Amino acid sequence: MNFCSGCGSPVTKKIPTGDNLPRFVCDSCLAIHYHNPKIVAGCIPEWDGHILLCRRAIEPKSGLWTFPAGFMEIGESIEQAAVRETREEAQAEVEGICLFAVLSIPHIGQAYLVFRGPMSSPDFGAGEESLEVQLFSPSAIPWDKIAFPVVEEALRRYVDDNARGAFQVHVATLPDHRLT
Amino acid sequence: MNFCSGCGSPVTKKIPTGDNLPRFVCDSCLAIHYHNPKIVAGCIPEWDGHILLCRRAIEPKSGLWTFPAGFMEIGESIEQAAVRETREEAQAEVEGICLFAVLSIPHIGQAYLVFRGPMSSPDFGAGEESLEVQLFSPSAIPWDKIAFPVVEEALRRYVDDNARGAFQVHVATLPDHRLT
Repeated sequence: MNFCSGCGSPVTKKIPTGDNLPRFVCDSCLAIHYHNPKIVAGCIPEWDGHILLCRRAIEPKSGLWTFPAGFMEIGESIEQAAVRETREEAQAEVEGICLFAVLSIPHIGQAYLVFRGPMSSPDFGAGEESLEVQLFSPSAIPWDKIAFPVVEEALRRYVDDNARGAFQVHVATLPDHRLT
Repeated sequence: MNFCSGCGSPVTKKIPTGDNLPRFVCDSCLAIHYHNPKIVAGCIPEWDGHILLCRRAIEPKSGLWTFPAGFMEIGESIEQAAVRETREEAQAEVEGICLFAVLSIPHIGQAYLVFRGPMSSPDFGAGEESLEVQLFSPSAIPWDKIAFPVVEEALRRYVDDNARGAFQVHVATLPDHRLT
């Protein structure tokens, strides 16, 4: 950030009075510009003992696999964002989804909120951001071709819970040393 | 938003190619500026059958009660944010906190992630943003003086679960017509 988005004057990074973290502050209008973590809403769609994964058509990690996930938008709930991403990336409908994992990635300022739940039908297809979309049995997940560590973390917990036959809500933090 | 934070040129609100929502796009460097919902991390601190609430010293809703909560920062996990807010606003330490509620407020672009858990000691006090901090038994919560509908929603679910002796993770969306 170099300029104030309100008045167009240069900004300086400094700790505002009463704050304890550096922020971009406008030299002219004194507006404080906060940058906060973004929410990534995701969903593991389920059908007949399988889960639906997408092979990414866009960077980063084009060609690798993920469950449908993307940035939550203003004006929607987290659950609506997860349903929308599933529709956009996998052309699939899910209903009655449950929160499954809350995974913070502090060093990149993201928090993944991952749901799981049944597809309404076996229909699916590759959305614009996907090369292909495919149902996998938990034993056939392509672990060496997963796009991001956070996706792998969620899927491993999913597979474990699924094997035990008992799903819980996982809250965890991804360590900094993992590449995302 | 009037100006590009990168190059200082004017921005225009329009739907970028391949997108389906209007964004602020720089007329000069073509940077797309996304605005996403913010995460508010909160905690209901527990001590000896009571919960700790703060009376707000700042606007909005100065003078009204809330549990400790505030915007998550880049570089911390959601849980760390909840612990930090409890320390800053109520001068209390909590440990072993559990996720309790995920409450979306679409119309203002916020998602509350509320934890609950035991205080490490009965020590607490008013932080800079609090007028006073007080332990309440669930039956003595000042319902007519709660700062925000989302806080009331979380507290009502807390009181219900507490009465049943079984806490779950609540996922819900606050309707638009409620004032926040």
